[in-house]
Amino acid sequence: MSYQAPLREMQFVLYELLKGDEILPSLPGFEDATREIMDAMLTEGAKLAQNVIAPTNVPGDREGCVYDPVAKTVKTPTGFKEAYQQFAEAGWTALSAPVEYGGQGLPHTLNTLAEEMMCSANLSLGMYPGLTHGAVNALTSYGTDEQKNYYLPKLISGEWTGTMCLTEPQCGTDLALIRTKAEPQADGTYAITGTKIWITGGEHDLVDNIVHLVLAKLPDAPGGSKGISLFLVPKVLPDGSRNTAFCGGLEHKMGIKGSATCVMNFEGAKGTLIGEPHKGLQAMFVMMNSARLMVGTQGLGLGEIAYQVSLGFAKERLQSRSLNGPQAPDKPADPIIVHPDVRRMLLRQKATIEGARAMAYFAALNLDIAHKAEDADTRERADDMVQLLTPVVKAFLTDEGFFCANDGLQLMGGSGFTQDWPLEQYVRDARITRIYEGTNGIQALDLVGRKMGLNGGRSVKRFFGMLESYLKDNADAPFAAHVKDALAKLQKATLWLMQNGMADREQAGAAATPYLRLFALTTVAYFWSRMAQIAQQQLAAGTSETEYYDAKVKTAQFYMEKILPQVNGLLTDIEAGKDSLMQLSVSQF
Amino acid sequence: MSYQAPLREMQFVLYELLKGDEILPSLPGFEDATREIMDAMLTEGAKLAQNVIAPTNVPGDREGCVYDPVAKTVKTPTGFKEAYQQFAEAGWTALSAPVEYGGQGLPHTLNTLAEEMMCSANLSLGMYPGLTHGAVNALTSYGTDEQKNYYLPKLISGEWTGTMCLTEPQCGTDLALIRTKAEPQADGTYAITGTKIWITGGEHDLVDNIVHLVLAKLPDAPGGSKGISLFLVPKVLPDGSRNTAFCGGLEHKMGIKGSATCVMNFEGAKGTLIGEPHKGLQAMFVMMNSARLMVGTQGLGLGEIAYQVSLGFAKERLQSRSLNGPQAPDKPADPIIVHPDVRRMLLRQKATIEGARAMAYFAALNLDIAHKAEDADTRERADDMVQLLTPVVKAFLTDEGFFCANDGLQLMGGSGFTQDWPLEQYVRDARITRIYEGTNGIQALDLVGRKMGLNGGRSVKRFFGMLESYLKDNADAPFAAHVKDALAKLQKATLWLMQNGMADREQAGAAATPYLRLFALTTVAYFWSRMAQIAQQQLAAGTSETEYYDAKVKTAQFYMEKILPQVNGLLTDIEAGKDSLMQLSVSQF
Repeated sequence: MSYQAPLREMQFVLYELLKGDEILPSLPGFEDATREIMDAMLTEGAKLAQNVIAPTNVPGDREGCVYDPVAKTVKTPTGFKEAYQQFAEAGWTALSAPVEYGGQGLPHTLNTLAEEMMCSANLSLGMYPGLTHGAVNALTSYGTDEQKNYYLPKLISGEWTGTMCLTEPQCGTDLALIRTKAEPQADGTYAITGTKIWITGGEHDLVDNIVHLVLAKLPDAPGGSKGISLFLVPKVLPDGSRNTAFCGGLEHKMGIKGSATCVMNFEGAKGTLIGEPHKGLQAMFVMMNSARLMVGTQGLGLGEIAYQVSLGFAKERLQSRSLNGPQAPDKPADPIIVHPDVRRMLLRQKATIEGARAMAYFAALNLDIAHKAEDADTRERADDMVQLLTPVVKAFLTDEGFFCANDGLQLMGGSGFTQDWPLEQYVRDARITRIYEGTNGIQALDLVGRKMGLNGGRSVKRFFGMLESYLKDNADAPFAAHVKDALAKLQKATLWLMQNGMADREQAGAAATPYLRLFALTTVAYFWSRMAQIAQQQLAAGTSETEYYDAKVKTAQFYMEKILPQVNGLLTDIEAGKDSLMQLSVSQF
Repeated sequence: MSYQAPLREMQFVLYELLKGDEILPSLPGFEDATREIMDAMLTEGAKLAQNVIAPTNVPGDREGCVYDPVAKTVKTPTGFKEAYQQFAEAGWTALSAPVEYGGQGLPHTLNTLAEEMMCSANLSLGMYPGLTHGAVNALTSYGTDEQKNYYLPKLISGEWTGTMCLTEPQCGTDLALIRTKAEPQADGTYAITGTKIWITGGEHDLVDNIVHLVLAKLPDAPGGSKGISLFLVPKVLPDGSRNTAFCGGLEHKMGIKGSATCVMNFEGAKGTLIGEPHKGLQAMFVMMNSARLMVGTQGLGLGEIAYQVSLGFAKERLQSRSLNGPQAPDKPADPIIVHPDVRRMLLRQKATIEGARAMAYFAALNLDIAHKAEDADTRERADDMVQLLTPVVKAFLTDEGFFCANDGLQLMGGSGFTQDWPLEQYVRDARITRIYEGTNGIQALDLVGRKMGLNGGRSVKRFFGMLESYLKDNADAPFAAHVKDALAKLQKATLWLMQNGMADREQAGAAATPYLRLFALTTVAYFWSRMAQIAQQQLAAGTSETEYYDAKVKTAQFYMEKILPQVNGLLTDIEAGKDSLMQLSVSQF
């Protein structure tokens, strides 16, 4: 069972649901992003993902990355370099990058679809260009002309890759604890000294140069997170000499074994400042926010491939008879897809993935609108959506990607637990997506602590307004009552948060995780209602794709009946408040 | 952070909640099982688990089992053999085995507590004696005197181990598909020919002889599962010669890498019949049922150790300040246990494990009562509870063991994903417990399809009666209203099942998984209410263990407010019925 890019699903969401083929080409600079161009790109991306990238996934997990402690180099798994080169040469690293530095200037949305395919095919390999993408964003926004002119063309062409160097042994979530130092030098550069850990692609053999974006503190830095600056530290300096930024070893991890997760030792390495002194977090958050949406897409991609593989198994594996009598009487048993509990696991994957895809692409489309729309109000409205949905997309899609991989493994029984099938690798690979780029708990705090209050709660009001308008204008839309009920619960929870979370931030912290989930489930319900409505309209209009659209309506029904009811328990949980979390003393645990 | 057996928790459940120290010694044959004896055994077991077994866990995962294709032997990880020998020599394999064959004749309940400790310490190693235990049970019930006299003493002493050989490549859940043949021989033995897969401990170097219990078909067997017989096939025959039962290879698995999961080739191997021809499944289910409770205990043990390790991390790891101001102002940041969302993950583990432990030990105690009580009615009532709770214990505890391991990994962030900590191993090891000995979906079908209807629904009625009596007699017990509400929902779901699941078995199949979960959550709520009541009584009576009992009441509150509310969504899911699962055609997936 090999990967098949879900092009029909992608087109349904991008064109039929989101009208991306109308909106994108109408944005200044995206005139080329017509449906024809996008379809052609997606078809090419699918071929690359299926034929070039996907075959490297399982071997890459088995072989892993190998560190040479003498040369301080990292060998990526066999085949990674060749696959990466094909990826870069076909222009995928340049897709949404700025034209003035050699990029194709195509919409970020298209990049999201390409990322989904890459992550279904091989998450570990996809992470190398993924991180580069973030470095390009940060440099484009905050780099000096010199930095941009020298580094961006090579990063965009994929000849070089980029990293984000944030974490240190004593400092993961809390960047205020950073110790890496930056000493100003006479020539205007900085000598960077310190140890960074969990640096994805910190060292590898895919390309000749690696551009590290490093958080460090200047000697006169104020304390806390306000004293952090961002530096560009290349592996190879412009004069061709080797910079003193070395890989000190690899992490041994549960999954993503083909991705080099490095300890990086900066030994007075030469760097240049990006942006203003002490304002490094601002630039880093530009990287981080696009990285968070990307990690959500990783969850989506892993969920999709887990579904495809376990679905294939469920259609082939013969075991027991249907509860209502033999369905394949000519065979020794029925395929297990006849069993309601197997269908429950398959549909949990299908309904979540298709619903989550709608939410993820919606966020991506709004990012393009926020960047490119001519009208300031339109840009602001789109940016509000992106800000609000970024933590939701990151946390919900990665949680669900992991659950989908687990559902797939579970329905395959013992086979799923063996390495004869890739499901166990998907579970291991998906596990990290719930942690990196800010754990999902941090995403939930970002939602309730920052995003909800942004501009006086404008984003949330606009988001609720979007759902309310839909329900008002489409009172007879399929499952409108389900969406209405979930929205009422979400609004009740929001009110509770406003009344309690402002005065006592621990109340917000206690509610954060169930609130994010309630938010996500309601948002996905809204998209499922809209998707079912489109499907019903197509069926009424006599579409030739009867089976496809009919499945959409039925999958929406499953979502409403078997997934959405979780909102009831979540609201109860939130409204119970923080007491049962906070009242135990540490020694009572 | 090394394992500390939770002796205080075990004593609380066994003595204070379940009155095991009164009930067990009152049963004929268990007169020795006094509190003093049991405490002494538990203390010894804890030492063994902590000091001898636990240190082999991580190295065993890294080294794994190694197959020698020439000799067809399996080498277990370094240290396993010595640890196993100490375990056997200390009498743990003989604990609950019959005295007449060299066992200690102690209660099964005590064995469950020992198993929990073993599984926290090293699941892979614990599986070798665990499977032997099942073989002892089946032989004790169905073996001939000759089989019992020859095999039981060595299995009970731990000098030999046992296996269960059920699965074949084409046949996992559906045993009717078995192809392994048994040809009667002139000497009264049988020549067994066929391939079995996923045989735990099928071949290894811990002991000199392995006793395989093999399902196979006689030449005159009727079709389907009614034509299966059970055979005893030793690796080494009584005359000292090597039987033709060989290991053909090891499975490569996601976890439990120290457990030898073998392909077993029976090449006309000499076997003897256990029990009557064509009635092998009956004997196998004796093994299977005790194995199912044991697997539930595995989930409990893994959840406990995951909680211990992640709790230790949460107390030490400094990261960010408390949302309500610094708690450790002398340190660069607060320990992460101050954060509500970290406490949510810790309490989800703590509340689930302590509640699930009550349910598991209750089932174990009833197994002893069902075997030993003088009064037939008491035996029957206890057996009803065991029958009903076996699938619930197996599925709920293994699901939750996996979730606890994941919660522990998650709260540790990136550290949890690396092999510097054992959490990622616990996640990988816990993953199989949801699958083997009948997937958790099969457990749910067993509950709704078999156990609920047993003896006209007598078990369920008695179970509901137990909860109703408690609520009637303890109307002011802590959280009685929560239990009452959950029970009402469970009874509503039960009624729905009776009205719909009898006429249409697919309705029962569609409801099975959420119904089992609703059942388990309600049962655990009942035990939490009782545990909180005991704690309140102790506090009112002026106990010196104020902090301990106070934590019980607070943890019960967490369970009621943050976990139990899931029942709302589960009832909605069940009552929505099978349509959204069954109406998609296969090609619509």
